[in-house]
Amino acid sequence: MGVKLGILGLGTVGTGTVQLLQDAPGRHPLLQEIEIYRVGVRSLDKPRDVNLPSEVITADLESIVNDPEIDIIVEVMGGLEPARSLMLQALKNGKHVVTANKAAISRFGAEIFTTANQAGLYVMLEAAVGGGIPVIQPLKQALSVNRIHTVTGIINGTTNYILTRMQTEGSDFADVLADAQRLGYAEADPTADVDGLDAGDKIAILASLAFGGRIRLEDVYCEGIRQVSQTDIAYAEKLGFVIKLLAIATNRVSDTSELSVRVHPTFVPKVHPLASINGVYNAILVEGEPIGQVMFFGPGAGAGATASAVTSDILNLVAALKSNTAAPNPLLTCRHEDYSQIAPISHLVSRFYARFLTKDQSGVIGKLGTCFGNHCVSLESIVQTGFHGELAEIVVVTHDVREGDFRQALAEIQSLEAVDSIPSILRVL
Amino acid sequence: MGVKLGILGLGTVGTGTVQLLQDAPGRHPLLQEIEIYRVGVRSLDKPRDVNLPSEVITADLESIVNDPEIDIIVEVMGGLEPARSLMLQALKNGKHVVTANKAAISRFGAEIFTTANQAGLYVMLEAAVGGGIPVIQPLKQALSVNRIHTVTGIINGTTNYILTRMQTEGSDFADVLADAQRLGYAEADPTADVDGLDAGDKIAILASLAFGGRIRLEDVYCEGIRQVSQTDIAYAEKLGFVIKLLAIATNRVSDTSELSVRVHPTFVPKVHPLASINGVYNAILVEGEPIGQVMFFGPGAGAGATASAVTSDILNLVAALKSNTAAPNPLLTCRHEDYSQIAPISHLVSRFYARFLTKDQSGVIGKLGTCFGNHCVSLESIVQTGFHGELAEIVVVTHDVREGDFRQALAEIQSLEAVDSIPSILRVL
Repeated sequence: MGVKLGILGLGTVGTGTVQLLQDAPGRHPLLQEIEIYRVGVRSLDKPRDVNLPSEVITADLESIVNDPEIDIIVEVMGGLEPARSLMLQALKNGKHVVTANKAAISRFGAEIFTTANQAGLYVMLEAAVGGGIPVIQPLKQALSVNRIHTVTGIINGTTNYILTRMQTEGSDFADVLADAQRLGYAEADPTADVDGLDAGDKIAILASLAFGGRIRLEDVYCEGIRQVSQTDIAYAEKLGFVIKLLAIATNRVSDTSELSVRVHPTFVPKVHPLASINGVYNAILVEGEPIGQVMFFGPGAGAGATASAVTSDILNLVAALKSNTAAPNPLLTCRHEDYSQIAPISHLVSRFYARFLTKDQSGVIGKLGTCFGNHCVSLESIVQTGFHGELAEIVVVTHDVREGDFRQALAEIQSLEAVDSIPSILRVL
Repeated sequence: MGVKLGILGLGTVGTGTVQLLQDAPGRHPLLQEIEIYRVGVRSLDKPRDVNLPSEVITADLESIVNDPEIDIIVEVMGGLEPARSLMLQALKNGKHVVTANKAAISRFGAEIFTTANQAGLYVMLEAAVGGGIPVIQPLKQALSVNRIHTVTGIINGTTNYILTRMQTEGSDFADVLADAQRLGYAEADPTADVDGLDAGDKIAILASLAFGGRIRLEDVYCEGIRQVSQTDIAYAEKLGFVIKLLAIATNRVSDTSELSVRVHPTFVPKVHPLASINGVYNAILVEGEPIGQVMFFGPGAGAGATASAVTSDILNLVAALKSNTAAPNPLLTCRHEDYSQIAPISHLVSRFYARFLTKDQSGVIGKLGTCFGNHCVSLESIVQTGFHGELAEIVVVTHDVREGDFRQALAEIQSLEAVDSIPSILRVL
């Protein structure tokens, strides 16, 4: 028994991790050198799906991070506090940390990694993004010889599940959400998922790794899927797209060294590799030079998949401890300390889809065209199809335009007497 | 200048690697600590796409592997000899090795890794499979906490390019091959690609990593795509499949501890993640417990992609050297020494597609059914569609059957007076 773990949390991920570690045959032989030394829980009385000696389980989490016998703290309790304080305390006590906590890392990463670096310790977070998909380690290692320019991910399984069902069944958002909640694919309070905040935490972490700078979470633009309607899904289909909630980080912001880091529902061309990622699956597409495109696909959540990622981080640390390094391996640490500059969303250059309801008058399309022209927005296509009651429905897809210009054009259009409303505005990949 | 490289070979991959290393800004900062100390070439006079000081280039490859100044040998010359001897000599001289040479590793891996392990050295081979796609490292590290049961890959870009064009254009194999040769996507002698041998080398390496045992290359069953006809592609389409050259390694061989390691054209259901991998792209699907399915997708060849993989291996070694380890990192070494037992192809249990040309007589389908029944082959569907001249064409898809039984049934069918020929037999995923 070489390496002693203190595990904080015995929920879905913690239980999956303990089950994996207790069932080592047929896996990497190094796992047999790991001892589950302490497991911290909120309630000692709760029935558990794993067998652990009673002396291993404690409700005193601080005693775990302060225990001098423990080499690695595995934080799988989630939430911001006390997770943050316990990780910091563990690092101050010389323990490496493995965490699945994207919320804490995306908010307190600067503090946590600074503390780790000062102490020559590792903080591993493979499970924080993409569940079981190995993506953090490839970004830190194999892909880091590339100049990465864009990371595009479907990294929230709940919203991808909802959008996939809306697309295949023709159902409305509210109905599918209710059903997803009933089936356990969405939380009772679905805000973090459906408003894009969970994907925002994750793309902040990926952007930080891909571009080697810290990201302020408040700079990440997040727009969720509540407003995606069946009408828009049908138009997407007709125009050769599917609607996906994409998280995007790119340094291809015109003429600046700024990054664009954002989450929003997006028209994705059907031929794009991400268009066919359906259900609760996640996928992350990394583009850079010289590699071109590489995509990682797999289960974005679930006890087993997440336990695989947590345990692979533990394995990496055990291997590092076994090889008895004099200095931390620079590919496992996270050493950047500067903050990346993030462009405001108004600076984004993108294609857009917009849907208008207008009075049934001749010349409306001409008026829309004039407004767009006034703000340098050139149109790729205009589709007028049918009526909603007495209103005509007009759909436009623009060429690449600056979002700020597009929004100004929309404001002008909104003020036209002939225009009733603009029910949908979506970015086009 | 911390770490000195000796690069063997300055062809496509060697040139790409030198270009990447000479253009470090914006990539991982550790690359700046690497010195291209010697580059070995066959001909000193050949014009090159990279600028290297004349004292760096030499035609004396042995002097490179014997040079005490050099820390890492990068073998990107390809071929079996002198690549094998030079790698062994480098290891005997205490140098780590990075190689892109799937042919040499799949044949001489036992000898090379034994030598490396005895000397406490690393042999890195990310570029040997899947071009730029990080797949070797995830198998060695992140995924090794799983019990992997199947690895399925599209790992030969040339054949995937040919099959994709046959499918989308309706062209015949010979025509597309000729065009691929003209465009540089296929070699003048296409044997290694189109007969599945290149994919066989690669799946042997993946199987070795996934299942922790050495693989004898002669145990790997290889069947290429020369016999795939437009008729079969059309039937596949009609039945809901695409035809892909798959390389498969699995331990799901009934009631034994044997592996099945094989390459063959395969009917792949259109909804399968590998069905939509087109053109020269590669993808590797790894399935295991608890992770489920994870897929890696990207460019399977090309100077830039392969250079990315080679350089990421170099980076890993530089990081290991920098952290000054007392013992090799057990996740980077390859320590298994036993050979895996491989089941003969006759033991495979699979669905099959077969196409028959028969005389236009009543009762032929009944006779086929009787022969299949005699050998415990149960059929999922029988399609009789049209005529070829005076012959009727009958297509069957079986349920899961043992290949040996299926072949015996086919032999009996072949002997029927009413049967003209069996132009196609393909396995169904």
